[in-house]
Amino acid sequence: MNNSVPLPGGFRASGVACGIKRDPAKLDLTLVVSDRPAAAAGVFTRNRVAAAPVRLSRTRVPSDQARAVVANSGNANACTGAAGLANARRMTDLVATGLGSPADAVLVCSTGVIGEPLPMARIELGIARALDSLSGEAGALERAARGIMTTDTVPKLVTRDAELDGTRIRVSGIAKGAAMIGPNMGTMLSFLLTDARIAAHELQGMLARAVERSFNCISVEGHTSTNDTVLALASGAAGAEALSGEAADRFAALLADACTELAQKIVRDAEGAKHFVTIDVVGMASEPDALRIAQTVAGSPLVKTAIYGADPNWGRFVSAAGYAGVPFDEMELRLWLNGTLLFERGAPVPFDARAVSERLRGERDVDLRLEFSLGTASCRWWTCDLTEEYVRLNADYHT
Amino acid sequence: MNNSVPLPGGFRASGVACGIKRDPAKLDLTLVVSDRPAAAAGVFTRNRVAAAPVRLSRTRVPSDQARAVVANSGNANACTGAAGLANARRMTDLVATGLGSPADAVLVCSTGVIGEPLPMARIELGIARALDSLSGEAGALERAARGIMTTDTVPKLVTRDAELDGTRIRVSGIAKGAAMIGPNMGTMLSFLLTDARIAAHELQGMLARAVERSFNCISVEGHTSTNDTVLALASGAAGAEALSGEAADRFAALLADACTELAQKIVRDAEGAKHFVTIDVVGMASEPDALRIAQTVAGSPLVKTAIYGADPNWGRFVSAAGYAGVPFDEMELRLWLNGTLLFERGAPVPFDARAVSERLRGERDVDLRLEFSLGTASCRWWTCDLTEEYVRLNADYHT
Repeated sequence: MNNSVPLPGGFRASGVACGIKRDPAKLDLTLVVSDRPAAAAGVFTRNRVAAAPVRLSRTRVPSDQARAVVANSGNANACTGAAGLANARRMTDLVATGLGSPADAVLVCSTGVIGEPLPMARIELGIARALDSLSGEAGALERAARGIMTTDTVPKLVTRDAELDGTRIRVSGIAKGAAMIGPNMGTMLSFLLTDARIAAHELQGMLARAVERSFNCISVEGHTSTNDTVLALASGAAGAEALSGEAADRFAALLADACTELAQKIVRDAEGAKHFVTIDVVGMASEPDALRIAQTVAGSPLVKTAIYGADPNWGRFVSAAGYAGVPFDEMELRLWLNGTLLFERGAPVPFDARAVSERLRGERDVDLRLEFSLGTASCRWWTCDLTEEYVRLNADYHT
Repeated sequence: MNNSVPLPGGFRASGVACGIKRDPAKLDLTLVVSDRPAAAAGVFTRNRVAAAPVRLSRTRVPSDQARAVVANSGNANACTGAAGLANARRMTDLVATGLGSPADAVLVCSTGVIGEPLPMARIELGIARALDSLSGEAGALERAARGIMTTDTVPKLVTRDAELDGTRIRVSGIAKGAAMIGPNMGTMLSFLLTDARIAAHELQGMLARAVERSFNCISVEGHTSTNDTVLALASGAAGAEALSGEAADRFAALLADACTELAQKIVRDAEGAKHFVTIDVVGMASEPDALRIAQTVAGSPLVKTAIYGADPNWGRFVSAAGYAGVPFDEMELRLWLNGTLLFERGAPVPFDARAVSERLRGERDVDLRLEFSLGTASCRWWTCDLTEEYVRLNADYHT
């Protein structure tokens, strides 16, 4: 299915194997190129410790002159010092030379295990191969998606088509990982490509808002990687006029929708997870308050193990909301699990615990809804359960 | 060993079985009584959702007229509504009637599974039995410690003797659980008893400071229970004069020391844990900053699984510090694991990974040290690792 995700106009992509990963058949270097200077925007990790590729790419967006994104997997450039920065810069220099573009038109990402020096000779070989195998054909974007995978079990791709002001445009994207879900320090990376024409500063604002409600509303174990990066490139190949007004708004919605689908795919592929959990928090005084409660509930290991154990344990859900640091009166809180009301007015309500538990056990998707009476702000968050398999994967990965 | 922990003068205690727990041999009701009105202080959960016993006890401390603490285990009174409050009040009324004291001289706690109504008939039986079996002899405090156990594998007791201003005084204490470590919503409870004479408002300040650096510096999975309670009672049986000046300071240190030992016992008995981890954060601009970094590192499932997996994964430790929300320059951070320097100046240093890993695997105790150059504030935190056993206990406890 994913194989058929097409590239938007003006882009070519490649994913190649260059021996960074142990398995020589696995792709570990990805290149995405815009044939002409493109608008580029980026949103980066909020971790105080930012890896060298993040530090370099941050200085190069927003830009109206971007040409490419290069990324390796298998071994992360997670260093923050001079050596890490030199390696990140070298990767962009090699791509720039290959394309005949300025070095600062190239953005860079890196993901994978840490602790080993980046194997630059292999990466240089990989960049040469990736430049040689750039393609705009079907399958190229899937290879690019595979080239950034670490512990992902499936490549993650999305595409959307729309007609805006009489012009057909496309948004396609790829993503990998989720926060630091992975034993391999599995950074979250995503690249969104569009042939719409849009100014870089506008694209930056749209991407920031889209990320706020998609990639920033997911958690696996809540560990923020030092390498998290979401990039958007707009080639402008679909139209001569930059989008504005309602067409720009519709494009922003399309971009946000693509980001949301990719974010959900990340959570659905989270390590060891058996359940995909959607958390709605409604009736809050402000959106930051709603997000704080959703994030805290999503991050509670006791909530996660209750869902894994198919246990409608209202006490764990309610008390997790209670320690989020957001003032509320629990007499005003109502809690639903998969549509069944479990708790209101400070006490559990009678419900068929066996039926609720059986549905939890039988279905992968779980809906948790916390309803307050403090205002009209709301949010939606996606997370997964916590399983023995997660612990095993993250404790035993060296053996 | 623990059996020999003596009560301070002026106190009697009991722990009885009244059928709240499934196993009829297990103690599930605890009573501690001061023969004369005692100074009492309390520190309670910061969770916005506070259970009825917390809501009631909060209104009764600090006080110079306290007589007793009653607590049940096996089934928590976790409700926040009127029914929960009526049950909590009834427990204190029964004890007060038995002692011939005012109702507000009795404090109450409750811990155990939630979702079932509190079995008040059994609790009333238990309170009658506990009143009948109060004792000041050796063994009474251990029975009291057993009466509040839920998933604890051992009763937790501590005692300290000292001579202050020529008067011999004693502090003894009991504790159970750790935050919400337990499948049984295992609240953290602790009761500290002393025969020192001290004014209630002074005792309140001393207890608050002691808790800040002991029970508030431990985490298992970071889920704050709705029932957490630490109480201190001072009978004054050891002296006619209230402590003041240097003697009061020495008493405060003794109280803090007892709290720290109990807090450590809780972490050492954490569910499924294989390692006891001490985290030192030094060189911070402020103590709250140091605590935030320690708590975030302690709370990271990737840090916890790395320790379980005996993996000296500096990237997980450093990046966890990075998302604590405290500004720092990672070039200034140095990280030690069990005395071995792993990371400095933004990059790992060469170290014998096999030796560090073998020591992690072979020893229960782990020391993690994060050294910054931002100031002189520091803190110490205690936590444990995350194991498959923890997930199993918290997902499968109904079966």
